[in-house]
Amino acid sequence: MSVAPLRLGLAGLGTVGIGVVRIMQTEAELIAARAGRPVVITAVSARDPSKNRDADLSGYAWESDPVALAQRDDIDVFVEVMGGHEGAAKAATEAALAAGKHVVTANKALLAHSGQSLAETAEANGLALRFEAAVAGGIPVIKALTEGLAGNRIKRVMGVMNGSCNYILTRMQAANLSYEAVFEEARALGYLEADPNLDVGGIDAGHKLSLLASIAFGTRVAFDQVELEGIGNVSIDDIRLAEDMGYRIKLLGVAQMTGRGLEQRMTPCLVPADSPLGQLQGGTNMVVLEGDSVGQIVLRGPGAGMGPTASAVMGDVIDIARGFRLPTFGIPAAQLVTCQSARAATPAPYYLRMTLLDKPGALAKIATCLGEAGVSIDQMRQYGHPDGQAQVLIVTHKATPDDLTNALSRFTTTGVLVGKPVAIRVEEV
Amino acid sequence: MSVAPLRLGLAGLGTVGIGVVRIMQTEAELIAARAGRPVVITAVSARDPSKNRDADLSGYAWESDPVALAQRDDIDVFVEVMGGHEGAAKAATEAALAAGKHVVTANKALLAHSGQSLAETAEANGLALRFEAAVAGGIPVIKALTEGLAGNRIKRVMGVMNGSCNYILTRMQAANLSYEAVFEEARALGYLEADPNLDVGGIDAGHKLSLLASIAFGTRVAFDQVELEGIGNVSIDDIRLAEDMGYRIKLLGVAQMTGRGLEQRMTPCLVPADSPLGQLQGGTNMVVLEGDSVGQIVLRGPGAGMGPTASAVMGDVIDIARGFRLPTFGIPAAQLVTCQSARAATPAPYYLRMTLLDKPGALAKIATCLGEAGVSIDQMRQYGHPDGQAQVLIVTHKATPDDLTNALSRFTTTGVLVGKPVAIRVEEV
Repeated sequence: MSVAPLRLGLAGLGTVGIGVVRIMQTEAELIAARAGRPVVITAVSARDPSKNRDADLSGYAWESDPVALAQRDDIDVFVEVMGGHEGAAKAATEAALAAGKHVVTANKALLAHSGQSLAETAEANGLALRFEAAVAGGIPVIKALTEGLAGNRIKRVMGVMNGSCNYILTRMQAANLSYEAVFEEARALGYLEADPNLDVGGIDAGHKLSLLASIAFGTRVAFDQVELEGIGNVSIDDIRLAEDMGYRIKLLGVAQMTGRGLEQRMTPCLVPADSPLGQLQGGTNMVVLEGDSVGQIVLRGPGAGMGPTASAVMGDVIDIARGFRLPTFGIPAAQLVTCQSARAATPAPYYLRMTLLDKPGALAKIATCLGEAGVSIDQMRQYGHPDGQAQVLIVTHKATPDDLTNALSRFTTTGVLVGKPVAIRVEEV
Repeated sequence: MSVAPLRLGLAGLGTVGIGVVRIMQTEAELIAARAGRPVVITAVSARDPSKNRDADLSGYAWESDPVALAQRDDIDVFVEVMGGHEGAAKAATEAALAAGKHVVTANKALLAHSGQSLAETAEANGLALRFEAAVAGGIPVIKALTEGLAGNRIKRVMGVMNGSCNYILTRMQAANLSYEAVFEEARALGYLEADPNLDVGGIDAGHKLSLLASIAFGTRVAFDQVELEGIGNVSIDDIRLAEDMGYRIKLLGVAQMTGRGLEQRMTPCLVPADSPLGQLQGGTNMVVLEGDSVGQIVLRGPGAGMGPTASAVMGDVIDIARGFRLPTFGIPAAQLVTCQSARAATPAPYYLRMTLLDKPGALAKIATCLGEAGVSIDQMRQYGHPDGQAQVLIVTHKATPDDLTNALSRFTTTGVLVGKPVAIRVEEV
């Protein structure tokens, strides 16, 4: 093959970086056939050159500074798998684009915070800036959205995009354990980020959702507009009671354009137990894409790990080798619009759980509050308690978040409520 | 926007063709933004110009002959949504490639029969020949396989790719109806092709599988090597009894490379009821892609219909407008290899149902036959019958097809078998 090879500079030799090295070393011929030209690693960078990484790196030039790597004359593509949305990763990515290098990154935080300016720089310089590995690991969802479904006006994007949270929620249910117990298990197993709030606080998944929303709706990435609620308040009681009523609780991302602006939520939601989202177990990810022509497309696969993430990186690299160029977010960054944020404007059913004093008329008072706020009841169950209190579950018909808030504030005036009610949105999937 | 528009010639104004017209008319601006240039329909062709198609076609030149359409100077892309693997569709596609036009087609039969020569012609002329709409309707599976997972050695491709068959099988189960009854329902509802054997005989799905196998394994399309068995022999008894043992019956396509060659099967299989494939209801399609790095990716969506198929056509058109060029089957057609066919060489568990004379030692004789053939039993159930016969269900451990055939032939020598046993492969998904 006489075509010039595409030369990669690989910044980061953690799990994902070594995954890329392994694919490049074992499948060079296959990749060359698919890419139409050889693809080679020229140089790498990482903090500690002496660390044992269980891979032969002797054929690659070594840079201790990723900025220096990004600027080398002998690389065409800067592959950033270091992580972190500031500092070295950002500086090196900017340096690569300034030096005329394409960029492939797995860095959701960097894109969520600096995607607009990076995309503008890349597009001004005629360069590719790609990030398939940053969203839902090995699932080619960026490609599906920017390319496969490009003929669609996207109606809604949903997803379970943090495998650690889904592991915790499904493990709580399967083993009937508290959040706290499973959180500690997950931490001991190494399933959580060094700062676990990135996972369980929904931040990591929120980054991903904000990137998908930008592509889906042609809007500037607005991570700060994502309504974020982690899973720390999801109780095993709610998981069990939701199951009784045919639902599962997921940390669900939803982005949709409404008449009042772009709605972006990453919050615990109830979904039907027999839906693809409801059936998703463990660390697997799922993204649901809804388009006006195609209807609903569901993509399911591993959301993290060496092989899946490296697979996504290689898909982007091979596209660049093939000469594919498209704007980072599907349309030119300069055309992305700043969209008003609509916080959970869409009406939905709600799951409510509350404890009432077990005295005559208590439930009637709650029902009256709901009625006065314009919220009607779909399902209701009362569970007796030995301690003279009653646990009440309600699933409402569709209500606006404002009406629901109104109802909840009326509850406090009834004098029958013990503690605070739990309210969780039911997403219709 | 000053870039020259991409001009389409649309051959075929049936459901899919009109779907393409609708998207082009309602979303011209969105498509131009995504494609980086305007995309327009210049000319169309169909048999009957006077037919009411519920769409305004007055802006397009009309050709009654699709070959003439394919050769027009004012089109860049020939969009073939006529169907049929011989005659006009083939002649017009060849004419388009000879005239230097890119081709987008929804025609699985044409590709399955003539894909190699068409791809060679397209690649010799530097043209795109794309067919996302030909496989699994709106699901962007060709793109996922040729591009998103291009860094993977593919291990196995599976799928439920004929919505009519899945509708029939799930409806039989839900309503406890015979195959014949549901077949007539489906025909009355217009769910089946004019020649229903294309659907229920597995031919249409076999075409699709042969195209996916070519991309996955770098082999020439070999539809004639697909082991084909339709759903006409699937009985409601087997559906119910499989369900009792935790399985569902699907018309499942499986392609995998084995030590003995390429295995391609489109046959009824049992899959676990709680797997994504097992849970697939109605006309929806699902494709499972397994790669060495990524693991398992599952894609689910509508496999047919106006909107989904037009969505897939538009994805290909927009890729062409963006300048993306890759070989039709992922690697150059000249490099695709002719692969030996391995008919169901892979060992698997099997579901066996048989009727035995209800006399002492009958079951032992059957078990002995299995043991002598090297086939061991995983689950076994016997159901008594009022007529002095017994129905016996067996799920074996993994056995080779040869060993199973050997066991079945031994059964006939026992003198206790009534009629012919049913044997259905259990696919591990």
